[in-house]
Amino acid sequence: MRFHTRKWVKPEDLNANGTLFGGKLLAWIDEEAALYAIIQLENQRVVTKYMSEINFTSSAKTGDIIEIGMLATHFGKTSLELTCEVRNKMTRETIIQVEKIIMVNLGEDGKPLPHGKTEIEFVRDRLK
Amino acid sequence: MRFHTRKWVKPEDLNANGTLFGGKLLAWIDEEAALYAIIQLENQRVVTKYMSEINFTSSAKTGDIIEIGMLATHFGKTSLELTCEVRNKMTRETIIQVEKIIMVNLGEDGKPLPHGKTEIEFVRDRLK
Amino acid sequence: MRFHTRKWVKPEDLNANGTLFGGKLLAWIDEEAALYAIIQLENQRVVTKYMSEINFTSSAKTGDIIEIGMLATHFGKTSLELTCEVRNKMTRETIIQVEKIIMVNLGEDGKPLPHGKTEIEFVRDRLK
Amino acid sequence: MRFHTRKWVKPEDLNANGTLFGGKLLAWIDEEAALYAIIQLENQRVVTKYMSEINFTSSAKTGDIIEIGMLATHFGKTSLELTCEVRNKMTRETIIQVEKIIMVNLGEDGKPLPHGKTEIEFVRDRLK
Amino acid sequence: MRFHTRKWVKPEDLNANGTLFGGKLLAWIDEEAALYAIIQLENQRVVTKYMSEINFTSSAKTGDIIEIGMLATHFGKTSLELTCEVRNKMTRETIIQVEKIIMVNLGEDGKPLPHGKTEIEFVRDRLK
Amino acid sequence: MRFHTRKWVKPEDLNANGTLFGGKLLAWIDEEAALYAIIQLENQRVVTKYMSEINFTSSAKTGDIIEIGMLATHFGKTSLELTCEVRNKMTRETIIQVEKIIMVNLGEDGKPLPHGKTEIEFVRDRLK
Repeated sequence: MRFHTRKWVKPEDLNANGTLFGGKLLAWIDEEAALYAIIQLENQRVVTKYMSEINFTSSAKTGDIIEIGMLATHFGKTSLELTCEVRNKMTRETIIQVEKIIMVNLGEDGKPLPHGKTEIEFVRDRLK
Repeated sequence: MRFHTRKWVKPEDLNANGTLFGGKLLAWIDEEAALYAIIQLENQRVVTKYMSEINFTSSAKTGDIIEIGMLATHFGKTSLELTCEVRNKMTRETIIQVEKIIMVNLGEDGKPLPHGKTEIEFVRDRLK
Repeated sequence: MRFHTRKWVKPEDLNANGTLFGGKLLAWIDEEAALYAIIQLENQRVVTKYMSEINFTSSAKTGDIIEIGMLATHFGKTSLELTCEVRNKMTRETIIQVEKIIMVNLGEDGKPLPHGKTEIEFVRDRLK
Repeated sequence: MRFHTRKWVKPEDLNANGTLFGGKLLAWIDEEAALYAIIQLENQRVVTKYMSEINFTSSAKTGDIIEIGMLATHFGKTSLELTCEVRNKMTRETIIQVEKIIMVNLGEDGKPLPHGKTEIEFVRDRLK
Repeated sequence: MRFHTRKWVKPEDLNANGTLFGGKLLAWIDEEAALYAIIQLENQRVVTKYMSEINFTSSAKTGDIIEIGMLATHFGKTSLELTCEVRNKMTRETIIQVEKIIMVNLGEDGKPLPHGKTEIEFVRDRLK
Repeated sequence: MRFHTRKWVKPEDLNANGTLFGGKLLAWIDEEAALYAIIQLENQRVVTKYMSEINFTSSAKTGDIIEIGMLATHFGKTSLELTCEVRNKMTRETIIQVEKIIMVNLGEDGKPLPHGKTEIEFVRDRLK
């Protein structure tokens, strides 16, 4: 799994207990899943269809740096399955894991469209 | 299930496709679960521990009004289990459902603390 | 008066004194008035035209839960008059009251349009 | 009346109709009133106590520039009364007016405290 | 240089150290440069092209009031050069300075367009 | 240079022209510089001191994915110099470049503190 996006936990990201607001974390995961899928499927019309169960293993506080990892686990005909882990950048302890996230590739009519992809590609290879 | 909180979908809530950003919706659900639990457990130190799988049944667009429903389904010793549904206020169509959300009651030391509650209470009854 | 929408006061909602920023509260009220009017008038093009004087009776702090109540008090030809109260969910103490808010129903041309409504309706009754 | 603060209306400031969200405007006014009072009273602990009725005369759209004017109209013992106007910077048309806003000067105990001011002062004069 | 826009530093504006987040300050400067240029060039299609080096001389904390000053220093054929200073409103100490910001005037096709302006104008004079 | 953090451009990130708001981009760069420095210096008290001139080479629109690259170029006694590039993830075209960003390592008293680092370290090596 590759960990790309990093976030610096700031006061605007806290819940009323002064720890990282879980809803903010879920929003960050959803954004990362969307952009990961857009890159792999080379299509900007991609939506989140499903997330498997979510365990909040630990939290984070102001000043912590977290990193979000994504990995494509299965290419369906019109969908892409991902697995996600969020961890503390300094200690590498897990904060949250989502075993399966299903993203769907849409056509201009907003309906599922076959994407024709079967494996992970890297942009640097496409550009060669 | 009671539907309390309502949201008016505004441009700031959209993803790049112009539909309601799923991450925003998850953040709204997490906030509603937290405040529902705080009210029931009469303790402001409550955290989200678990969410069961999430199906995005339909979406919403700018100008839509959604409402978020919560119901307590089980009172554990230090936890509270909720079930959640988000729907379109005008048509009552379901947008998203989360069958189980587990919230944990914390003490001042940040560790799980028995809450002593066994059933849903209404604030109006407490105030009598 | 029915109290639907609830808010969990978080650090991002505070003013520089560490209490709930009044401007945030006014924004929440305006949003609730808009969506209440949209539901009653069954028209998404509704704008705020007037708010009567506002007394900030008490404030709120991080972790407090507030609830926003709205009630339709008069149906004009192209307008709807509401009354609003915001209170602390746990104690039911009033935080702010706005006696009259006037919302105007607009047509596609952006001009006031008769809405044909004369009394409060509930969505559950419309759907029957 | 002096018009200081200016805002550039961006997509994040819009309501679902695509015009400036009234709640955002009220939040901007409240912030401007607070900082105007803080400057005049030379005290950072200042809160909004009252706003007189508000008429939404016109609206604004993406790309418009608005400016917010404030003027102190009366110095009470522990309070300061302001009057406010928001207008379109290019045409100088009025968008909203609030005839009276009452700000209260607080002590460290959070209670009203005499501020000892009786007239508008300019920082440049204080610094001489 | 005229100092118009003022900001009240709130918890949502802080970095993880509890001081004003530099990125927020840069965003405020960019917005002020854009609206200053729009007013001078009487064209809403204006973009930031260049900022000279930026020194963070001092910071700010919650409750501080800052003011942002802009001055047009040169009118190019399709561009406008500005100089910017941000300072603490109460003490007038400098927080940040940007010697040169270049804004470009765009036509409807998104390409640089001559603006025909050669000197600073005030809206009050245009309206006479 | 390594490109970690990615952003999905959403309506909330746009300026009034419908392109990516430059101020938002500057805020993202500042956050990335801060967290990169925190990781390298193993100290959460790090502040931005200086940014060299900034050229906005191209822009981005809703739905685009951008990635932010950082590289440490010099370790001073109490400072760290970085160079930054932001580019379009799909085409790898440059959006903005900042040749030099200086971050300063602070002690608990808020004053510059020697950090003792002389070269780039990877967390995976520290954890061995």
